[in-house]
Amino acid sequence: MSIESDIQTMGAHAKRAAGELNMVGSRKKNIILQSMADALEEQRPAIAIANEKDLAAGRENGLSSAMLDRLRLDDKRMDSMIKGIRDVADLKDPIGTRISRWIRPNGLQIIKQRVPIGVIGIIYESRPNVTADTAALCIKSSNAIILRGGKEAMHSNAAIADALAEGGKRKGLPDHAIQLVRTIDRAAVSELLKMDDKVDLIIPRGGEALIRTVTEQARMPVIKHYKGVCHTYVDAEADLEMAADIAVNAKCHRPGVCNAMETLLVHEEVAAAFLPRVAKLLESAGVELRGDTRTCELVPTAMPATEEDWFEEYLDLILAIRVVPSLDEAVEHINTYGSRHSDAIVSSDEVAQNAFLKRVDASTVYVNASTRFTDGAEFGMGAEIGISTDKLHARGPMGLEELTTYKYLIMGKGQIRD
Amino acid sequence: MSIESDIQTMGAHAKRAAGELNMVGSRKKNIILQSMADALEEQRPAIAIANEKDLAAGRENGLSSAMLDRLRLDDKRMDSMIKGIRDVADLKDPIGTRISRWIRPNGLQIIKQRVPIGVIGIIYESRPNVTADTAALCIKSSNAIILRGGKEAMHSNAAIADALAEGGKRKGLPDHAIQLVRTIDRAAVSELLKMDDKVDLIIPRGGEALIRTVTEQARMPVIKHYKGVCHTYVDAEADLEMAADIAVNAKCHRPGVCNAMETLLVHEEVAAAFLPRVAKLLESAGVELRGDTRTCELVPTAMPATEEDWFEEYLDLILAIRVVPSLDEAVEHINTYGSRHSDAIVSSDEVAQNAFLKRVDASTVYVNASTRFTDGAEFGMGAEIGISTDKLHARGPMGLEELTTYKYLIMGKGQIRD
Repeated sequence: MSIESDIQTMGAHAKRAAGELNMVGSRKKNIILQSMADALEEQRPAIAIANEKDLAAGRENGLSSAMLDRLRLDDKRMDSMIKGIRDVADLKDPIGTRISRWIRPNGLQIIKQRVPIGVIGIIYESRPNVTADTAALCIKSSNAIILRGGKEAMHSNAAIADALAEGGKRKGLPDHAIQLVRTIDRAAVSELLKMDDKVDLIIPRGGEALIRTVTEQARMPVIKHYKGVCHTYVDAEADLEMAADIAVNAKCHRPGVCNAMETLLVHEEVAAAFLPRVAKLLESAGVELRGDTRTCELVPTAMPATEEDWFEEYLDLILAIRVVPSLDEAVEHINTYGSRHSDAIVSSDEVAQNAFLKRVDASTVYVNASTRFTDGAEFGMGAEIGISTDKLHARGPMGLEELTTYKYLIMGKGQIRD
Repeated sequence: MSIESDIQTMGAHAKRAAGELNMVGSRKKNIILQSMADALEEQRPAIAIANEKDLAAGRENGLSSAMLDRLRLDDKRMDSMIKGIRDVADLKDPIGTRISRWIRPNGLQIIKQRVPIGVIGIIYESRPNVTADTAALCIKSSNAIILRGGKEAMHSNAAIADALAEGGKRKGLPDHAIQLVRTIDRAAVSELLKMDDKVDLIIPRGGEALIRTVTEQARMPVIKHYKGVCHTYVDAEADLEMAADIAVNAKCHRPGVCNAMETLLVHEEVAAAFLPRVAKLLESAGVELRGDTRTCELVPTAMPATEEDWFEEYLDLILAIRVVPSLDEAVEHINTYGSRHSDAIVSSDEVAQNAFLKRVDASTVYVNASTRFTDGAEFGMGAEIGISTDKLHARGPMGLEELTTYKYLIMGKGQIRD
C-alpha cells in the first residue's frame, strides 16, 4: 500500500466515524471522555517509556534545550493532560443547540441548529500534550480527528493516541474517531491536505513556516494564526502608572507566547513623561529595547530599531518602541505591521477608546488591559483549541463552539414553491 | 507595469478602501447605495451599448443561445438590477450588532461585535447582473469588493462597475471600494488568489470547473458550492399525494437551478403505489426518468440508471430514481452521492423525520417540503450573495450577515495577568 492510499483510507474511516459520532449523545460522550482520561492514567508507564525514547533521540539529534523541554512529559504535565480531558467532559455540549428559529409567511418553520463539523485534521509540532487536548475537544464536539504530530514526538504521540482510542473504545467511542498518522513521510501531509472530500477543516499549530506550508497546500478551510505581533498604545490621555503596569505585564509575564506585546507605541505628548520610566522597569526585568529616533533620544540605552523590528514577533525579552504623533498614526502602524491578533489602548478618553476599538483590525482589541488575556480560559471558554487571526468562521480564542457548524432544519406541511 | 503588480495595487487600494468604508455609518451607506442605483438608471443607454457589444462578440464566437440569454441585459433585467440595489439599501445593517457580552470575574467586559470582513473578491461567469448585486451587498456590509467577471461580459461589467463607482463617489463612497479586474489574462486571477494579505475572502460563482480552479489556487478562504445534487426521499410513512406534489415541484419548477431535485429515493414499501403514479406526472411534464432495476420494473418507460447518474447534477428535465429498503439506505445514499446542498424527507413518522434531519449531512434538510426553498429570499434574508455547501463560516443561503465577521472588544480598568 502506498502512503497516499493509507491516508485516503484514514480519511474514509474518519468520515464514517464522524457519522457514527454524530449519533452519540452528550452523556455517553462524557463517559467516553472520562474513560479516555482513565486510560491515560493507566498507561502512564508506557507513555513515560515512549517519551523517554523521543527525548533520547532528540538529544542525539541535537535538539535545543527549549525543544527538549517542550517535548518532555513529566508527572506534572501528565497530570494536567489527564485533568484537561476531565475538564472538557464537564463543559457544556454545544451540539444540538438551537441558534435561531423563525416561521415564514408560507408556514415553513426554519431552525438553525449547531452540528459537528465532521472530520478535523490537526497538524502540530513538538508538544505531545496537544494530542490529548485536541482529541478531547474534538470528541466533545462530536468531530472525528486525524492527528499529525512532529517526528520528534512520534513515540509519545503514538502512546497517547493508543491510550485515548483504547479508553474511548471501552465505552463505545466509534472506531477510527481518533487516528494518528504514524509515518514521518511528508507525502502523508500532502495527501491529507488534498482530501477536501473527507476532511472538513485543518488546524495547524506550530511555527509560522509550518502554518504557511499547510495554508498553501490545503484545499479545505484552514484556521490558524501565523504569529502574534501584539501592540500596546499609550495615548495622550493615558493613566501613566496603569500604562506602565500593563506594558510590563504584556511584555514580561510570559514573553514566549503569542499574546505577549512585541511593540509599544507612545503618543508624543506623554513620551517624555512615560518612556524613561517604563524603560527602567522593563530593563530591570531584563528586556532589551529597540526604539525609533525619538525613543532613543529619551531612552539612551535603547538600540535603534529597523523597519524589520516593527514586523517582528520576538517571543523573547525584546521590545520595539515607537513614538507616534497621533492615535491615527498608532492605528495605521498596527494595521500595517500587526498580525491581527491582540492590540491594546491605554487611555481615559472615551473618544480615543472608541476610535481605537473601531479602527484596529484585530481579533481582540483592548481598552486599559494587558493583551495577555487573549486565551480561551481567560475568556471563560473552559478550553481552547487555538487562536485564530483569520476572519472567517472563528476569530480570536477558539473553544468548543468554534468546533461546530450549523445546519438548517426546515419543517413543512407539504409546501411547494409557486 | 505587469499584470501581477496591477493586481497587487488593486489589492492595496481595496484594503485601504475597506478601512475607510468601516468608518461610514448606516445612513450614509444607504444614501450611497441609492446613488449607485440612480447612476445605473442614468447610464442605461451606455450599459445597453456595452451589452450589445458583448452580445455581438458572443454571436461571432458562437456562444450557445442559453449563454447569450444569460448575457443579455434587457429592460426588465436592468429594472430588476436597479431595484435590487434599492432593496439592499432598505435591509437592516448587520455591522455593529452586538452578538454577545459578558463580564469575567476579574471585571473585564468582553463584547463580541459584528464587523466587516474587509476585502471580498468575487469571481464569476457570464451574468452581468452579478456585478451590481454583489457590489450592493458588499457595500451594505462595509466590505470593499474586487470583481472579476467572465470575458464574454467584459463590456457590460465595465459599464456597470463604472456607473456604480461613479454613483457611489457622488455621495462619499471611498475610492476603490468597488473595483473590476479589466484584463482577461488568467494571470490576474492567479495573482488575486495568492494575495491572502490583502483579500480576506473569495466567493466564486459559476460552473464547477471554475469553482474547483479557484479552490485549488486560493490561499485565502473560499466559500462556494460545487453543485446541487438534491434528493427527495419518500418514506414508508409518506402521504403519497403530498410526496408527488413535492417531487414534481422540486424537479420541474425550475430544473436549471442548484436547489432542484436530481434524485428521487423511494422506500420499497410504497414504491409500487407511488412510482407509477409520480412517473406519469413527471413524464407528462417532460421529465426523462432513469431508474435502478426495481424502478424500471415498476416504470417500464424509465431508462436504466448507471452509477454515474447518482452523482449527476442534470440541471435539466432528467431525474434519477432509486428504490431503497430503508431510511438508513436513503441516508447512506444521500451522504455518499449528494453534494451537501438540500435534501428532503416526505414522511408523517416523527421518528423517521428526526433520524433524517439528524443524519443527512447537508446545509438544509427538509421535512415535507420542496427543496426549492433553499434560497436567501425564501429564507427571508432579503438578498443572497450565494449558497454555501461548505461547513465553515457560512452554510446554506448567504445574506448580509454571512458577509460579516466579529471582533472581541475588551473593556478593562487596568487589569493585568497574574
